[in-house]
Amino acid sequence: MKLTLLLTASLVVSFAHAQSNAPAAGAKTQEPSYTPAERPGDGKPVCGLGASFHAGRRKALREALGDGIVVVRGLPDVRDYLPFHQDKVFWYLTGVESPNAALVIDCKSGREVLLLPKANTGRESWDGELWDADDAWVKELTGFSEVRDSDELAAVLGELVKADTTLWISMHPNVALAGCYDQAAGTDMAIHKDPFDGRVSREQALKDALTKQFSVEAKDFTKKLNELRRVKQPEEIAAMRRAGRAGALAMAEAMRSTAPNMGEWELDGLMSWIQMREGAVGPAYHAIVGSGANSLVLHYGDSSRRMQDGEVILIDYAPEVDHYDSDITRTWPVNGKFTARQAELYDAVFEAQAAGIAAVKPGVTIRDVESACSAVLAKHNFSQFVRHGACHYIGMEVHDVGSGGAKLVPGVCFTVEPGLYEEKTGIGIRIEDVVCVTESGCEVLSRDVPKDRATVEKLVTEQGVLDWLAQRKQ
Amino acid sequence: MKLTLLLTASLVVSFAHAQSNAPAAGAKTQEPSYTPAERPGDGKPVCGLGASFHAGRRKALREALGDGIVVVRGLPDVRDYLPFHQDKVFWYLTGVESPNAALVIDCKSGREVLLLPKANTGRESWDGELWDADDAWVKELTGFSEVRDSDELAAVLGELVKADTTLWISMHPNVALAGCYDQAAGTDMAIHKDPFDGRVSREQALKDALTKQFSVEAKDFTKKLNELRRVKQPEEIAAMRRAGRAGALAMAEAMRSTAPNMGEWELDGLMSWIQMREGAVGPAYHAIVGSGANSLVLHYGDSSRRMQDGEVILIDYAPEVDHYDSDITRTWPVNGKFTARQAELYDAVFEAQAAGIAAVKPGVTIRDVESACSAVLAKHNFSQFVRHGACHYIGMEVHDVGSGGAKLVPGVCFTVEPGLYEEKTGIGIRIEDVVCVTESGCEVLSRDVPKDRATVEKLVTEQGVLDWLAQRKQ
Repeated sequence: MKLTLLLTASLVVSFAHAQSNAPAAGAKTQEPSYTPAERPGDGKPVCGLGASFHAGRRKALREALGDGIVVVRGLPDVRDYLPFHQDKVFWYLTGVESPNAALVIDCKSGREVLLLPKANTGRESWDGELWDADDAWVKELTGFSEVRDSDELAAVLGELVKADTTLWISMHPNVALAGCYDQAAGTDMAIHKDPFDGRVSREQALKDALTKQFSVEAKDFTKKLNELRRVKQPEEIAAMRRAGRAGALAMAEAMRSTAPNMGEWELDGLMSWIQMREGAVGPAYHAIVGSGANSLVLHYGDSSRRMQDGEVILIDYAPEVDHYDSDITRTWPVNGKFTARQAELYDAVFEAQAAGIAAVKPGVTIRDVESACSAVLAKHNFSQFVRHGACHYIGMEVHDVGSGGAKLVPGVCFTVEPGLYEEKTGIGIRIEDVVCVTESGCEVLSRDVPKDRATVEKLVTEQGVLDWLAQRKQ
Repeated sequence: MKLTLLLTASLVVSFAHAQSNAPAAGAKTQEPSYTPAERPGDGKPVCGLGASFHAGRRKALREALGDGIVVVRGLPDVRDYLPFHQDKVFWYLTGVESPNAALVIDCKSGREVLLLPKANTGRESWDGELWDADDAWVKELTGFSEVRDSDELAAVLGELVKADTTLWISMHPNVALAGCYDQAAGTDMAIHKDPFDGRVSREQALKDALTKQFSVEAKDFTKKLNELRRVKQPEEIAAMRRAGRAGALAMAEAMRSTAPNMGEWELDGLMSWIQMREGAVGPAYHAIVGSGANSLVLHYGDSSRRMQDGEVILIDYAPEVDHYDSDITRTWPVNGKFTARQAELYDAVFEAQAAGIAAVKPGVTIRDVESACSAVLAKHNFSQFVRHGACHYIGMEVHDVGSGGAKLVPGVCFTVEPGLYEEKTGIGIRIEDVVCVTESGCEVLSRDVPKDRATVEKLVTEQGVLDWLAQRKQ
């Protein structure tokens, strides 16, 4: 998840043998162990991936823009009784996990102002420590030397914005946990065009307000920021590795616990739990847990059917850890043994994914990687069962920003996820991992979940949490 | 969760002995068993709690309003990659779990029109079966004889709305899974008043659009609908019973799995999973998992601390099942044995809750129940440790609609949740259950989770899922 539309016809190219960074067929992946991950802070506020990481991102944006005033707003309070999750763009530039915060940067002078809500001791007695402008720890934790009340945003901008100032804002749709710009933009536009609604997006509302208050038309810095976001820093890659590991352990546990007549929702819930146990704040996207014919429904999200003996189950589900996503798919037999046809399709997808991963290196594009996958599927005469592209960028959003035609460089992260979907037999097979481009090839960030057919079959027959619970009942 | 502010001074009244519907101290609650709940439909669309339930709610609203045209809109597509959850008001009146749907009712003639999105086969090949106006199964499933395209809403209203028509809409803030009108209304108002945003709520946007298009000022039917919502129908009580049971099984498993040095997030994730396993679609509100001094933070939501030997852990967490919420709190010792002071405070809260539950019957108010709780705490000279009221309505929203001064009648559901919070010792104790008023008293809908001190201590020492996982590692 989320697959991208298949835009190009499969190119038939010869299959290159897997490079050393791709798993050999039949190789046994190390058994995951259950050492629960730490949560940062042990109950105390943290500044994202560290003050220096976020300061570095602000500096890079400042240098990319050269001149002008940047204003970025965080999200308001949540509307429901769920935890607050910060907007991705604001978080990337600050690491601050507080509602009603804002950031102002003067690109030329380098002055940076963090704006936080006023102290509210009444609310803190109910909610615990909140970020506010009066907290002495904020400056030390975040590295901001200037922290002001959010109510002063207009005053701060009033000091800085003149008639000829270039005012920079983000028009990227605000997204938080499990959010993605493509989905958000579509919904925002539909609401705006709705004859019984018509409201503009939060970004447009900010732009309109700035024009009205300062007679300056704000410009969008998204293109410049996205160039930075496409190439991950070491701290980001480490977070994506944590997300990959949490997702891998959850997927392996789902394999162990699978049995005929189990509800799809049981594996959905089980994986959500193991992910959280391993440090996730939540899902990177909704679980796709498709048994039988549901394995053909690319974004099936109901998890409401009982899986049957003889079917495959396709699970596409991964967590978000420290604001970074993973995206993992595996397919396995509900009863622990692939049928001949299931195995035939599985092996082709496995080979295609290995070819795709082997093709990853600096200088090529993700289109080249997709071609490497589709060539293998074509070689096996399975092209008619292909329904989606094999790659998309991933980072803070599950479909992360970046151009598909751009050359890969070290630090770029994306998925490799070929799939085959045979309507007639109700067999859908997809295998997906997240890779990060290195100097010589790539690192598979989700490598801890087995995928060779023999290991997968073996894992399904092992005792899982759900097996143990079923036994305890007696 | 979510506690209500303590509005009235505690009334010192004499303690009435628990009635038969309140648990006797020391009584052993039946051990929960792990029979996973069914999900309705086994992969096929369902109409909420059944077509006749929702038709009955429409009829009751029609009769309450007498005349005029009702228009209610469901929610648009989600902005993030999470499952769609319908707005509560729209769902209550239709049972339809589809984005971009609407309902029109002519109160006088009884004509009812369901509006659904146009068929979109391209999207269905990716997402599976979607509700659309062309689906023949919709009429049979929902009982609506007239189903039209959502695009025709203006045309349908154009037929029905004349210059003197009373047009009825809901100004209740739209809320879905884990949403609640009090939180939503506050955030909507803050956005509207924000000088850098200023957008109106979805409800106000609809009202404005209707005024503009039909020159009629729409009236709010919320007050009439809330009177209906306050008294639960048998189908609703059954759903709340399912929610109570799923929450109870999750809470009991958290007790079994608790051990010193465990992360609060581990119990948060464990409970989320067990709830889903037992049929929940998600949480009714975010988990409050407070160990040690965090037990004093009434809405603590970080779940990021490791609990320590000798502390209590207070968990306030429950699921939503079939659009209805539960709300359960238990407090237990991390090491399985309450200290003398913890036990003293615990026993007082336990006694207070029993007194509150014993006071529930038709004819009294929830204020009377709160007084029964606070009288017990006052008797023990613990009033200085009381920080919140003991009751709030519950239903489709965790703080459900209804007046605190209204007389109780059979079918009204609310929480009974006294608590004591001693800053000096870092001990917070709360015990909370959901009750439903019956002809003679009440039914405790969350009764399957133990609360007498001895059973709670025993459960903590039993082997839980997390214990088993820790063993498997070796």
